[in-house]
Amino acid sequence: MPDNRQIQDYIRPIVDFPKEGIVFRDVTTLFASPRGFRMAVDQLLHPYAGTRFDKVVGLEARGFILGGAVAHQLSAGFVPIRKKGKLPAATIAESYTLEYGEAVVEIHDDAIAPGERVLLVDDLLATGGTAEAGIKLVERLGGEIIGCAFLVDLPDLGGRARLEGLGMDVHALCAYAGD
Amino acid sequence: MPDNRQIQDYIRPIVDFPKEGIVFRDVTTLFASPRGFRMAVDQLLHPYAGTRFDKVVGLEARGFILGGAVAHQLSAGFVPIRKKGKLPAATIAESYTLEYGEAVVEIHDDAIAPGERVLLVDDLLATGGTAEAGIKLVERLGGEIIGCAFLVDLPDLGGRARLEGLGMDVHALCAYAGD
Repeated sequence: MPDNRQIQDYIRPIVDFPKEGIVFRDVTTLFASPRGFRMAVDQLLHPYAGTRFDKVVGLEARGFILGGAVAHQLSAGFVPIRKKGKLPAATIAESYTLEYGEAVVEIHDDAIAPGERVLLVDDLLATGGTAEAGIKLVERLGGEIIGCAFLVDLPDLGGRARLEGLGMDVHALCAYAGD
Repeated sequence: MPDNRQIQDYIRPIVDFPKEGIVFRDVTTLFASPRGFRMAVDQLLHPYAGTRFDKVVGLEARGFILGGAVAHQLSAGFVPIRKKGKLPAATIAESYTLEYGEAVVEIHDDAIAPGERVLLVDDLLATGGTAEAGIKLVERLGGEIIGCAFLVDLPDLGGRARLEGLGMDVHALCAYAGD
């Protein structure tokens, strides 16, 4: 009998994580499934069939899992954006606002060459703060963001609107409203 | 003219990182190269051609990049081993000794089913402390580690001997002695 499960069927809801009232969308159950992981990579790339990318940029840490697979599928290079102090060579940095305080992410300053075509990948689009910081880092190095692709969109948190407001093309495999 | 660069040619030495006297082997320059990244995944899997794997287990954080690509290439599932407190569902934990103090890594307690065949992947084999903790976690869930694959081996730090002493099959693409 064919297996007709969709992406959402592999994502596990975790109630009250990381704090009360939040339903966390756990994609590790999707990644752990050979079929789910392959479907996720395939569907993430469907909008970009025939599009050339030089680099896939992934956001620490879950964006590394999906980003590594996507870069491999595209025969592109993979570039990590990491939390402050994790990258060993010369970097540029962007800060972004969290619920309490701010965070800083970095990219190696030679990781993207001017004019390179980039796909930004992460598992989850929530407020879009990290993604916006990532977009700025890539653009400061002269890269061109062709698309921003996510497994899960939480549209109520405003990330999609925020990135589209920056002129970005946003693609997500599934959305949870009311989260 | 054919490009004959080898894996080592893509790895960047960073002198005195993270502290004086250490030469850090930066694999981000390997990942950023489409050719380097593809070669790394291909060569990592050469010893296992014809071998069936159910799961690829990757160690946070750089092991996620390579592990995601390797799992995709194998059509296997990907399972992350993360630092304490990062995984949202029920976990089991192992601690290991660092130069100063100790660290704890975790795996979801349903991420591996008994009898599943596992490839453990990370970028760097140094003392082998994290890898040994990862092996124990997989084995406590009933998984069978078929191989442990790394990009870089620093044999002077004893990790290879340590893992081989546990009966593991260790594969690395390159080694730096004297580090």
